[in-house]
Amino acid sequence: VSDTLESLERRLRALEDERDISRLIASYGPLVDSGDPDAVAALWAVDGGYDTGDWKMSSRDDVAAMVRSEEHRGLIARGCCHFFGPPAVTVDGDEAVAICQSMLLVRRESRGYQVARAGVHLIRLQRTGHGWEIISRTARQLDGSGQADELISVGLAGEAR
Amino acid sequence: VSDTLESLERRLRALEDERDISRLIASYGPLVDSGDPDAVAALWAVDGGYDTGDWKMSSRDDVAAMVRSEEHRGLIARGCCHFFGPPAVTVDGDEAVAICQSMLLVRRESRGYQVARAGVHLIRLQRTGHGWEIISRTARQLDGSGQADELISVGLAGEAR
Amino acid sequence: VSDTLESLERRLRALEDERDISRLIASYGPLVDSGDPDAVAALWAVDGGYDTGDWKMSSRDDVAAMVRSEEHRGLIARGCCHFFGPPAVTVDGDEAVAICQSMLLVRRESRGYQVARAGVHLIRLQRTGHGWEIISRTARQLDGSGQADELISVGLAGEAR
Repeated sequence: VSDTLESLERRLRALEDERDISRLIASYGPLVDSGDPDAVAALWAVDGGYDTGDWKMSSRDDVAAMVRSEEHRGLIARGCCHFFGPPAVTVDGDEAVAICQSMLLVRRESRGYQVARAGVHLIRLQRTGHGWEIISRTARQLDGSGQADELISVGLAGEAR
Repeated sequence: VSDTLESLERRLRALEDERDISRLIASYGPLVDSGDPDAVAALWAVDGGYDTGDWKMSSRDDVAAMVRSEEHRGLIARGCCHFFGPPAVTVDGDEAVAICQSMLLVRRESRGYQVARAGVHLIRLQRTGHGWEIISRTARQLDGSGQADELISVGLAGEAR
Repeated sequence: VSDTLESLERRLRALEDERDISRLIASYGPLVDSGDPDAVAALWAVDGGYDTGDWKMSSRDDVAAMVRSEEHRGLIARGCCHFFGPPAVTVDGDEAVAICQSMLLVRRESRGYQVARAGVHLIRLQRTGHGWEIISRTARQLDGSGQADELISVGLAGEAR
């Protein structure tokens, strides 16, 4: 019986890990749209990276600075929604990789919202004593340049390391 | 062994609860877009509330009346999609809270769809003998007013009561 | 104890099945947007079907041909994102049905993206020796015609056969 119990526990933990990572990813949009620099930054490791294509960050402090930036505060004041689709998550021990689609909605002056950007995010994470943290995150637009293709291929191959 | 079994069962039930709640939330959009008043209303408790910002409902009957309203039927006739992102769900015993992002797509007269609204939904639920039901649901737009910020903070703090 | 273990294992497998199917569905968008015909086609059974409303496919080869088509390559070259919401999945033994919302974002010549389509996808799957495969997939727009209503009703009733 103990063998079976161990196997069930391992499978259950895998589902819990994926749930925790999906939740972390689902938190990013609402936190960044409400302009909470510390809560956004806490999703990253202290020396975690974030490359948006326009902006390269390489620490939790850099991520917080992005949220506090005039550019980001301008987006929030105008009305914006960083909207993410459900991620495909692959966990390998204490490391994980996830890929999801994203769009940025920005409020128009007249009415409604413009889809300003659309693309994918490749997110690498590691398990720590207090949960999962983002090691690196890379966003690329689906803009005809093909720059998102490698992220998609790597993310769905699921090589977490 | 029974201790471990009980612990595995509790963790498994937590995942099942989150799955059930995620499914309930994923059902709302398709049901409201197909104009099914009874199926939409059945997601709520008999005296459950829904505050869209423009419209305050305080019962299952009120929710059904919203779906039957001339305003909502007009949206459906034009072509609309109430699109929701993956929710972050927190279960605490027989109560739960979830937050997710949302957008409303409305078909243009010429071609394509306009993103008419974008925001977040904070959803409180309770467990009943026949599954989870919505106790209260509040939607706020991300329109620069900051009115969505408290929902986001409460929803991600995960205080289900 | 073995009775309980068996019951836990069955519930755990149900969650794993739903996770596997959700992941398969979440993979479609990134794969089709990166223009990978073989990887997209591999999501389907050899004789699986896909009816987009404009285009009827009835095999893995047909799906690959769609991804290789001039029309689809034109969309990718312009910049496109086939964006899907979180699915509601119902598993019944070795068969499953899922419904999810979808939109197609197409890059504008000036800036940003147009929401060119919005609707629902009804997806029927079967379990094989190497995982779940799509048996049939039907997409319909939410365009005021009511053509999506039956998909929604069938998908949420969850009759997998």
